[in-house]
Amino acid sequence: MSADNDQQAREQLIDLAAQFYDQFELGEIPHMSVPTRTKNNIEYDEDSDVWVYGDRESTRSANSVRGARKLLKAVYTIEFLADQLEQDRSSTLRELYYLSESWDNKEAQFNDQDESNGLIEDLEIVSGVTREDFHMRPEESGAKVMGPLRIREQTNRGDRDIHCQLDVGQGGYQIPNNPDTIEFLDNDADFVLCVETGGMRDRLVENGFDEEYDALIVHLGGQPARATRRLTKRLHDELDLPVTVFADGDPWSYRIYGSVAYGSIKSAHLSEYLATPEAQYIGIQPADIVEYELPTDPLSDSDINALESELEDPRFQTDYWEEQIELQLEIGKKSEQQSLAARGLDFVTDTYLPERLSEMGVL
Amino acid sequence: MSADNDQQAREQLIDLAAQFYDQFELGEIPHMSVPTRTKNNIEYDEDSDVWVYGDRESTRSANSVRGARKLLKAVYTIEFLADQLEQDRSSTLRELYYLSESWDNKEAQFNDQDESNGLIEDLEIVSGVTREDFHMRPEESGAKVMGPLRIREQTNRGDRDIHCQLDVGQGGYQIPNNPDTIEFLDNDADFVLCVETGGMRDRLVENGFDEEYDALIVHLGGQPARATRRLTKRLHDELDLPVTVFADGDPWSYRIYGSVAYGSIKSAHLSEYLATPEAQYIGIQPADIVEYELPTDPLSDSDINALESELEDPRFQTDYWEEQIELQLEIGKKSEQQSLAARGLDFVTDTYLPERLSEMGVL
Repeated sequence: MSADNDQQAREQLIDLAAQFYDQFELGEIPHMSVPTRTKNNIEYDEDSDVWVYGDRESTRSANSVRGARKLLKAVYTIEFLADQLEQDRSSTLRELYYLSESWDNKEAQFNDQDESNGLIEDLEIVSGVTREDFHMRPEESGAKVMGPLRIREQTNRGDRDIHCQLDVGQGGYQIPNNPDTIEFLDNDADFVLCVETGGMRDRLVENGFDEEYDALIVHLGGQPARATRRLTKRLHDELDLPVTVFADGDPWSYRIYGSVAYGSIKSAHLSEYLATPEAQYIGIQPADIVEYELPTDPLSDSDINALESELEDPRFQTDYWEEQIELQLEIGKKSEQQSLAARGLDFVTDTYLPERLSEMGVL
Repeated sequence: MSADNDQQAREQLIDLAAQFYDQFELGEIPHMSVPTRTKNNIEYDEDSDVWVYGDRESTRSANSVRGARKLLKAVYTIEFLADQLEQDRSSTLRELYYLSESWDNKEAQFNDQDESNGLIEDLEIVSGVTREDFHMRPEESGAKVMGPLRIREQTNRGDRDIHCQLDVGQGGYQIPNNPDTIEFLDNDADFVLCVETGGMRDRLVENGFDEEYDALIVHLGGQPARATRRLTKRLHDELDLPVTVFADGDPWSYRIYGSVAYGSIKSAHLSEYLATPEAQYIGIQPADIVEYELPTDPLSDSDINALESELEDPRFQTDYWEEQIELQLEIGKKSEQQSLAARGLDFVTDTYLPERLSEMGVL
């Protein structure tokens, strides 16, 4: 699987570079067009329920010194990536930035990491190949899985078969930077439960929630890394498992849910690769704050602004979200998921989650 | 092992509560004395090479309403912890804060998490039992190990035998919140290499550095969690392995080294449990910035202040550190560990680390 991907990614990169030569031959000024990556050029795709780029494009063309320099950097980067794929190596985004200092042409070197990160995003969009398939790693992810699932991970030192309950410690199975190296062998899972905080993830594991309910507990660790979102999508699409998201009851956590379910502006070109539009939100819901009388904090001004901007956000324009967000603005309060501990350490696993999952039709 | 620890921890907590009753019986006003936890009351212990608290004490006494409330909270918390140990449960620091809302006496409830965190620290110091032995977890750690070591982890669902190269994916073995649940079975390791950033950790694993040099690669992930420092100390003390620290070349990273080697002010009562005074610093050293002509950033004002305050810090008052810090102030520059990529992706594993480890007498 992976070797094929590598070959394909390499060919697509080389095609890209070849385009510049073709343009030269045709007497055209070399150029590359990419969709504009701003909020104004993001469209909600009704069919696939995800965010994608619209029709606006910006062009990097060699008819200015600045544009020519951009293309030069792109060509050097393409060469580096093609070599990296041929040698089955990988590198971090940060390493690419530093590595450019070793390139013979000073004009091709990056001025800062934003520039090299941005170029990699351009290349992803133009080539249709994901960064992971270029073998470019982010800094780190740290997310982990616990539940009744046996996987095979293709590591650079051989395959590893791992059961995500029996073969791991209390910390669970560490998701690799590129989860497409994982093959799902077999599983007894009924659903996926993505959890925002480490404290709640540890609570669920200690209480044996994954064993009792055949849940795959995926730790998001705040705003989830691409690797975590990709794995979640694969669990949904390939194993046909319902995906649920359990987060704090505040606007920032609704955005975490949104990025799992619908994708983000920064990676709209990858929504079909990363987003799970069928993902459902468990809570903490504003309605839970009222119903369970949870300990709360007052909404800050920035919380209120964030909630109001969510009301304008097409991703949240459903009856469910409008009702919840308006309720939250009315009560003026927010609660963390760990605040369920105010009703005892077992309340979340004995009462709250089973009730919510039944309501949602997952259990 | 763990059951004994639990029993002991429980007894020490109950002894503590019993003291208050004894004080009542003797006609004394109940009180509890703890060392003052400020910079002024930190002493460098020459014998053990770690930081410990000095003689200054503050007393929480029931002769004021405020003091009485503190003791009340302590008694409720002791009861909760003793029950938790008896039932072999655990909880997070955040859960304790929320849980207090369920206590029948409103005066015993915590006002914020700083208060409950502080009380747990008080109880650690007064009882001589660590937070881990109270079964109180931090939010999360995320650190991981890769290398020739086979461990047995006692999880709450049975023992797990795991080889930290053969039984794990590319992400490595996830260190649990309480690493004292780990038993070292056997190993072929020659030394421990603690690495600051995830990007460098991934580089070393991809390049097979742990295999070629029989290194245990411990990912610190910035300022290391207690669990990571504890595991590092145990690897040193129990397996007799040299410990080395590989971090960025800036004052904040020297502090990371300092916290592995000498402990910190916040946890000075735990230095003997957490610190590895024999740990050696590999780099990035200011001398490396010059020798290898690494890409640099200029020192900011806060970098300069931090370096100057390190010159005053007894932990850094060695010829080695004085020379390095003065050199850095002179050149006015800092470099990240990933900047070694400017000399190629293999430079760190083929050249830099082997050279430094030889100089240090580790290889």
